[in-house]
Amino acid sequence: MNSFGEKLRFSTFGESHGVAIGCLLDGVPAGLKIDEEFIQAELDRRKPGKSEFETARKEDDKVEILSGVFEGKSTGTPIAMVIYNTNQKSRDYSNIKDIFRPGHADFTYFYKYGIRDYRGGGRSSARETAARVAAGAVAKIMLRELGVEVLSGICEVDGIKAEKFDYEAAKESIIFALDAGKEEEQKDAILKAKNEHDSVGGVSRVLIKGAPKGLGEPLYYKLDAVLADAMMGINAVKAVEIGDGVLSASLKGSKNNDEIRSSGFVTNHSGGILGGISNGDEIVMNVYFKPTPSIFKEQKTVTTANEEVDFALKGRHDPCVAIRGTVVCEAMAALVIADMLLLNMGSQMDRVAKYYK
Amino acid sequence: MNSFGEKLRFSTFGESHGVAIGCLLDGVPAGLKIDEEFIQAELDRRKPGKSEFETARKEDDKVEILSGVFEGKSTGTPIAMVIYNTNQKSRDYSNIKDIFRPGHADFTYFYKYGIRDYRGGGRSSARETAARVAAGAVAKIMLRELGVEVLSGICEVDGIKAEKFDYEAAKESIIFALDAGKEEEQKDAILKAKNEHDSVGGVSRVLIKGAPKGLGEPLYYKLDAVLADAMMGINAVKAVEIGDGVLSASLKGSKNNDEIRSSGFVTNHSGGILGGISNGDEIVMNVYFKPTPSIFKEQKTVTTANEEVDFALKGRHDPCVAIRGTVVCEAMAALVIADMLLLNMGSQMDRVAKYYK
Amino acid sequence: MNSFGEKLRFSTFGESHGVAIGCLLDGVPAGLKIDEEFIQAELDRRKPGKSEFETARKEDDKVEILSGVFEGKSTGTPIAMVIYNTNQKSRDYSNIKDIFRPGHADFTYFYKYGIRDYRGGGRSSARETAARVAAGAVAKIMLRELGVEVLSGICEVDGIKAEKFDYEAAKESIIFALDAGKEEEQKDAILKAKNEHDSVGGVSRVLIKGAPKGLGEPLYYKLDAVLADAMMGINAVKAVEIGDGVLSASLKGSKNNDEIRSSGFVTNHSGGILGGISNGDEIVMNVYFKPTPSIFKEQKTVTTANEEVDFALKGRHDPCVAIRGTVVCEAMAALVIADMLLLNMGSQMDRVAKYYK
Amino acid sequence: MNSFGEKLRFSTFGESHGVAIGCLLDGVPAGLKIDEEFIQAELDRRKPGKSEFETARKEDDKVEILSGVFEGKSTGTPIAMVIYNTNQKSRDYSNIKDIFRPGHADFTYFYKYGIRDYRGGGRSSARETAARVAAGAVAKIMLRELGVEVLSGICEVDGIKAEKFDYEAAKESIIFALDAGKEEEQKDAILKAKNEHDSVGGVSRVLIKGAPKGLGEPLYYKLDAVLADAMMGINAVKAVEIGDGVLSASLKGSKNNDEIRSSGFVTNHSGGILGGISNGDEIVMNVYFKPTPSIFKEQKTVTTANEEVDFALKGRHDPCVAIRGTVVCEAMAALVIADMLLLNMGSQMDRVAKYYK
Repeated sequence: MNSFGEKLRFSTFGESHGVAIGCLLDGVPAGLKIDEEFIQAELDRRKPGKSEFETARKEDDKVEILSGVFEGKSTGTPIAMVIYNTNQKSRDYSNIKDIFRPGHADFTYFYKYGIRDYRGGGRSSARETAARVAAGAVAKIMLRELGVEVLSGICEVDGIKAEKFDYEAAKESIIFALDAGKEEEQKDAILKAKNEHDSVGGVSRVLIKGAPKGLGEPLYYKLDAVLADAMMGINAVKAVEIGDGVLSASLKGSKNNDEIRSSGFVTNHSGGILGGISNGDEIVMNVYFKPTPSIFKEQKTVTTANEEVDFALKGRHDPCVAIRGTVVCEAMAALVIADMLLLNMGSQMDRVAKYYK
Repeated sequence: MNSFGEKLRFSTFGESHGVAIGCLLDGVPAGLKIDEEFIQAELDRRKPGKSEFETARKEDDKVEILSGVFEGKSTGTPIAMVIYNTNQKSRDYSNIKDIFRPGHADFTYFYKYGIRDYRGGGRSSARETAARVAAGAVAKIMLRELGVEVLSGICEVDGIKAEKFDYEAAKESIIFALDAGKEEEQKDAILKAKNEHDSVGGVSRVLIKGAPKGLGEPLYYKLDAVLADAMMGINAVKAVEIGDGVLSASLKGSKNNDEIRSSGFVTNHSGGILGGISNGDEIVMNVYFKPTPSIFKEQKTVTTANEEVDFALKGRHDPCVAIRGTVVCEAMAALVIADMLLLNMGSQMDRVAKYYK
Repeated sequence: MNSFGEKLRFSTFGESHGVAIGCLLDGVPAGLKIDEEFIQAELDRRKPGKSEFETARKEDDKVEILSGVFEGKSTGTPIAMVIYNTNQKSRDYSNIKDIFRPGHADFTYFYKYGIRDYRGGGRSSARETAARVAAGAVAKIMLRELGVEVLSGICEVDGIKAEKFDYEAAKESIIFALDAGKEEEQKDAILKAKNEHDSVGGVSRVLIKGAPKGLGEPLYYKLDAVLADAMMGINAVKAVEIGDGVLSASLKGSKNNDEIRSSGFVTNHSGGILGGISNGDEIVMNVYFKPTPSIFKEQKTVTTANEEVDFALKGRHDPCVAIRGTVVCEAMAALVIADMLLLNMGSQMDRVAKYYK
Repeated sequence: MNSFGEKLRFSTFGESHGVAIGCLLDGVPAGLKIDEEFIQAELDRRKPGKSEFETARKEDDKVEILSGVFEGKSTGTPIAMVIYNTNQKSRDYSNIKDIFRPGHADFTYFYKYGIRDYRGGGRSSARETAARVAAGAVAKIMLRELGVEVLSGICEVDGIKAEKFDYEAAKESIIFALDAGKEEEQKDAILKAKNEHDSVGGVSRVLIKGAPKGLGEPLYYKLDAVLADAMMGINAVKAVEIGDGVLSASLKGSKNNDEIRSSGFVTNHSGGILGGISNGDEIVMNVYFKPTPSIFKEQKTVTTANEEVDFALKGRHDPCVAIRGTVVCEAMAALVIADMLLLNMGSQMDRVAKYYK
């Protein structure tokens, strides 16, 4: 259950403070030029320690490709990538060894598995998402060949909402802010919380451009459902909406329907997906991240022996997990779209026949 | 891609106006007493034509079990259930044969598959959800044996929000309203929209009681991610939130974390899931339905030949698809939880050893 | 676990003496002309009661398509087919209710599931294979469009081996004999065993013509491995060999290797598969069926309470299950090849790019 | 398609002459004591260069565990293991770069993927099977806790058949010979072929002791079918038989049926599997390996441009691939049985209820 995807399938492994994390990416078509610099650049976008808005843990996140690439191109065999943990031995974990940190998976892992790797959250740490970003980077390379682009940015921090969605601005922003006019206010909120030993939530907005009509496999591998799965599965995500999402539920049908002209859809309330299948319009979704559960304020909790204790966390943590999380949203979205592109190839008999002629 | 679940896996088939719809449910443990009356009662909760708040299409939705049950008990073999369509031949579809209804899957099915069954939406019709409810009813029977209960109700219609969540009240309400004090206002909104040839959106709230700690398979079959997948895949759903969901993103960590005492969690902002695994608390989610796209107002659209036309739909349609949709949410949630209960059985070696001793 | 295939996936349901058996076939490309007469003709080839070489149970095996076909063509949605059991109520099963028939799955079903449908073997009956033949017929229709043909025949009965493999002769033979010169001897062996209240084993040989190079997904969905899975899963099959199979193990490399010329392979010891991938040559395999375990001689067995009894079976049974089994081999082979054809479509990036251009 | 198993799922990666090979093993129950020395010992049994009966390629095959194990125990998270290739850069491959070696997967990989890693067969090399052995060793550790043992040995080399099956003798034999009385003759045959620049085939016999009744998920994840899949997918395997296998097809039912007494089955023609489910008896199968296709005699073949050439291979190769192959058979069998043990846990409702009480 550590895999995702059907035709393009990736699996990840590794713990926050283990030897290494990594991924296996299976199903990449052969002959794709693998741009290793791009993969590293994507990892660099996500890597920690780049600014005061992120955890102070420093990791180089240097990726090494172990298989599946020959003379610069994919061979159709699984691409294994590994990132060795280099900064994981600096601490003593005895203070959290027997304690469940509130808001964390400590409690649930302990009761599910009976034992847990308590060092930095082990497998449940967001550190694992670096492996997703590596896999997602390969998916992005594949999408680029097919004219599809996945973009994202932060549209809300601590309740401060973007009023415009400028994906180019997000690329330049250290917090990936979509609205440069709100960026300073958002940064201030993050630092203020950080100084108060607290954390803030945020929202990532993802945009997929150039996806052809027809992606998504009804009824139980719909594009929107699989995107929801992919996004909700990212650490700290608590809600996902496609297109107008939550807002749709309070609209009238006459307002929410997207009328159609010969040149395309007049509006895009649907977020580019109808009946679980892409309609050729831009695919849009919002991904809601809760505030980082790792805070330095004292909190009430219990031990593994169910004894009540008061507890204040130490260590290095992101004050707003949504920031680096948006890079993970992009990676997961790219993986989903690439998978759907491959799955869709068998949907019409005459196109199958043409393929084999 | 018409299947869902891993260890308890169901597949559905059928079109709105075809011969029949139905499902296959594979993985039900042997020896479960199958209460056919309960299955039928669940279908009756969802079936159309019960009130003015629903479509006028009348379907008995009588379910027939074809296999997998012997002398009243499951045998461990697949349970096939079929519901014959009885009221599907009453209309002439020539007026929509070549037209894409705005907000519907007509457009995307046509471009994905090249051909489509235009009668009532074919496979993309919400009629298929009756098959999910039949499968979900079996899952509910299984959950009952394990002390788990799935409840739901409508917490918002046309922007009118419930202020309390009374699942017993919902059982008595023809629109499954969770807040009896808001029910009349919500009903009025539905009828007003209906009279104006329009439709309204709504929100279903789902509550799962009695789920043990430990359900959910990290990292890519997490409980929240799979619930999001299951809910987003229901017709007309555009957003899903777990626990405080959207609201979490604007909270501070110190507010959003659920502190823990020896007797359990003090609050339940998380909605009963941490790190993708159930924590033993109540599991709560909200499912947002867009307004029914089938409205009788004139709309702009195009034909399959991409010619622009103005179009007003005829026929029988739910003015608020969320109402009957909430029954489908329950069914899907029950199927997910039952699947997770079975999957979880191999998580600890000493319990596996004990099982085989 | 009642499903097979990845991209073309079928599931079956039903018990020997239940209401009905049937299948769901998911992943058939849209726009395929569905020839219902051909499907019925395939079922007629397998149906019981056609001659003295088969069980006397009469079943019409009339197939009804419930979904997935519209105006004679597949729509890309699941094709559900059902065959109602019409001749299942004629007997009293009290004599075998508590007894494990030697060589049958009675024993193992009972211990696995705790309960079992004892009527005619329930789910473990070869009657279920009719559903495979229906699904396989659709796969054959698809293969025909792509120039692939699946043939088979009986190459051995009771140790009497065919010396030539004439698939046209097999079509005309009531026992599907590949060698007309051995047919009478084989028939005599069947009738002799039948008269002695015994049964005989046999071997089916399957030939796949026209399969393109490149089918099979290494390393764990290889064409030969999946064919072995498909064949070994058929009732009563105990061995599967690809190409020279068993014989290969006693050959030298210089003898067993197939040399290559510009016009193709000089020999076909490999049976058309190298490294788990089709090489463009004919795919050949042999499938070994044990003798029907249902015999009328007295045998030693035990009851469900583990009491020893002597037991002589009554009823109607095939004296040589391989005969009708060969039709099932063809169906399974067709389903595997069709699945592999769809899976292979994403194997090269330039072909994926061309598809979406 | 580089994964195997349902509940215990492993994936492998890597090429013969790439950076590394390795595996991911997902689904190991938490709390299993991971004996790293045992894993290495299993790899040592398969590693090349131990004797004149094997390839002269020297590889240490040192395994490193990257994740999933904490303080010596499995944590329930994926166990990643990597084996770096250390002896892969010694040769110039220009002589085989554009040539298809007869009997190898060169031809099929080239046509499937358009490109191929020609160094030592790349992904299709049997070197990948070291990763299976590592995964299989963990499965064996798990099986040991449950009282199940997987054994194997060589029962035939170059047509010279064992007359007894002594698994203890096989442990002591450098060629894993089951019959010490035939061992010298078998060794001589291998060396003779080697000296003549040729190779020989062989047969591995696998025995599984202690498997409980009830393993196997009918009808499409039957124990025998999955074992056949697992074995046929091993490099160079061309046939698989369960129990009496091929011989069964020439027996009468009265001879082939295993009668039952209160103490168990009187005979074991079935090889411990009835209806795809284990019956509690010993599980037995034979796995037929073709002779190594890598021979040093001159053979006729073509280039990637389809030009005819005569070709004599150079390099280091096993004269009998079955020898080291038998260790791989054991590993795959262990993985299948462990998977089936976990899958079976949800088969009876009362046992599920007991688990959660």
